[in-house]
Amino acid sequence: MNSEFDLIRRFFTRPASRAALGVGDDAALVEAAPGKQLAISTDMLVSGTHFFPDANPEKLGWKTLAVNLSDMAAMGANPRWATLALALPHIDEAWLSAFAQGFFICADEFGVELIGGDTTRGALTLSVTIFGEVERGKALQRDGAQQGNDIWVSGSLGGAALALKALQGKIVLDEDHLKACRSYLDKPYPRINLGLALHDIATSAIDISDGLQADLGHILERSNVGAEISFDPYSLAAPALSPFLAESWAQHCLFAGGDDYELCFTAPHELYDTIKALEDPLWVDLTRIGQITAEPGLRVLDANGQLMPITKGGYDHFA
Amino acid sequence: MNSEFDLIRRFFTRPASRAALGVGDDAALVEAAPGKQLAISTDMLVSGTHFFPDANPEKLGWKTLAVNLSDMAAMGANPRWATLALALPHIDEAWLSAFAQGFFICADEFGVELIGGDTTRGALTLSVTIFGEVERGKALQRDGAQQGNDIWVSGSLGGAALALKALQGKIVLDEDHLKACRSYLDKPYPRINLGLALHDIATSAIDISDGLQADLGHILERSNVGAEISFDPYSLAAPALSPFLAESWAQHCLFAGGDDYELCFTAPHELYDTIKALEDPLWVDLTRIGQITAEPGLRVLDANGQLMPITKGGYDHFA
Repeated sequence: MNSEFDLIRRFFTRPASRAALGVGDDAALVEAAPGKQLAISTDMLVSGTHFFPDANPEKLGWKTLAVNLSDMAAMGANPRWATLALALPHIDEAWLSAFAQGFFICADEFGVELIGGDTTRGALTLSVTIFGEVERGKALQRDGAQQGNDIWVSGSLGGAALALKALQGKIVLDEDHLKACRSYLDKPYPRINLGLALHDIATSAIDISDGLQADLGHILERSNVGAEISFDPYSLAAPALSPFLAESWAQHCLFAGGDDYELCFTAPHELYDTIKALEDPLWVDLTRIGQITAEPGLRVLDANGQLMPITKGGYDHFA
Repeated sequence: MNSEFDLIRRFFTRPASRAALGVGDDAALVEAAPGKQLAISTDMLVSGTHFFPDANPEKLGWKTLAVNLSDMAAMGANPRWATLALALPHIDEAWLSAFAQGFFICADEFGVELIGGDTTRGALTLSVTIFGEVERGKALQRDGAQQGNDIWVSGSLGGAALALKALQGKIVLDEDHLKACRSYLDKPYPRINLGLALHDIATSAIDISDGLQADLGHILERSNVGAEISFDPYSLAAPALSPFLAESWAQHCLFAGGDDYELCFTAPHELYDTIKALEDPLWVDLTRIGQITAEPGLRVLDANGQLMPITKGGYDHFA
């Protein structure tokens, strides 16, 4: 650690009011409120793997924290603190300033304090560990889905994957179209309030980062159940994706695109109205897409009730 | 995240008995014991910056966790949990197996559970976040050193820096010599028990990762005090370093070499005997190297009581 990096460290240092001790010692000190557990999650973002090397640094700062916050949403946890470890190939103060700005805009939006970190030389790599509080016993886990439960998805899917395909030059979108889907990719909005509202409602939850197929698959696997989904794809697809839904690549964006950061959750069927009543106060669409079955595996029915071949997913759960 | 990486994730998954929820959900859940705070620290190790690309993976696994544990020692915290984020350029199962083995040997030695992580493709980068428990109000911080306090250092210094110089070809050591100092570099042993024993004794503490000068400098800066140190360098130097202490590069290893992971701490002078009495039960040498002064800055006196010019350190605190 040289003085350049020491300067950067100061750059990310802001007073912590909720932590007992923030940045600047060997460790930070935090304490969960009585009766609460700490939910802890780590994500690493690597340049060239998770984002374009020339990604807008302010947007990248937002996204780096937001994708971690999405894990807190999926646990029904209230985000509190984060640490940031950062490897940089060289010091670019303008880049760092913009990155920190985006990071702190997101942190302020969700009430998160940065309590520690590390900065070092290396290929551009961002690693966040996030801490949230959740009342003991109330966390939304992946293993509680039960036969007969409804399966729900928040928001819309496939917008980020559509933008990525366009930016990679695999499809051509007009300017308005690209603009409409780019915000899904650049500025995912973690569903923290929804996660908190689902305490005592959802039997399981996960955030959709690897695509609906893969992530619903994790719930099925951990809960030892299966699922039958049947829904109007147009109701769940990001509006910009809808015109293409006859194409198999667009269905792939919808089912397996990833980077959506919406929540997929299960809940008893009798809570349907309770869940729909969350839409207005939380400003989020909630779509019931199917039911949990005792029979393992995932079955997708088309609009005519016919079993659809599952499009190729990112995971071998469905291979 | 593809299935290759999914396999790796399973490779690092072991049952967690002390966490409420371990690896495999959107987040882990932990709860500090009543009256305890969580100490949290993050370190990132990058290939080529912090270790040789061809470093022995088992030793690297140990060190990756050990350097983080050293921060817990410096806080007087009892390590409990860790997360590991890992970027890999490609999948090398033999390497991963050895790395995990070293990591878990260290985890078992210190009672740490791995509760989460992330694995992705990228330049070899290892990021650990570590969590320890410490009784509320008992943490050893950097900001409590007071005028008249003794300054102490555990163990010996400069061994790791000597080994690094030899491995870089900057000096030549015979085989026995290299072997004697290499364990300092490869297998640092975090001073957890010492940190715990220093509750109600030390007024400040830090672990020596950047070299004594720089790290003592952090205590002085945060405590708003100065220090005068005066000691027999032979008493503090790693035995393999002693034959070279007339050389300025060897003094640099001793004062500014880094990678020592010993503790530097301050304590009231009247606790001298109490502190020396810790040596036998904790199997650690404890050396008083000087006193805290009201006058800012660091002064080093040689064996004749003459002010020594400070050798060039890693930090500009002493420039």
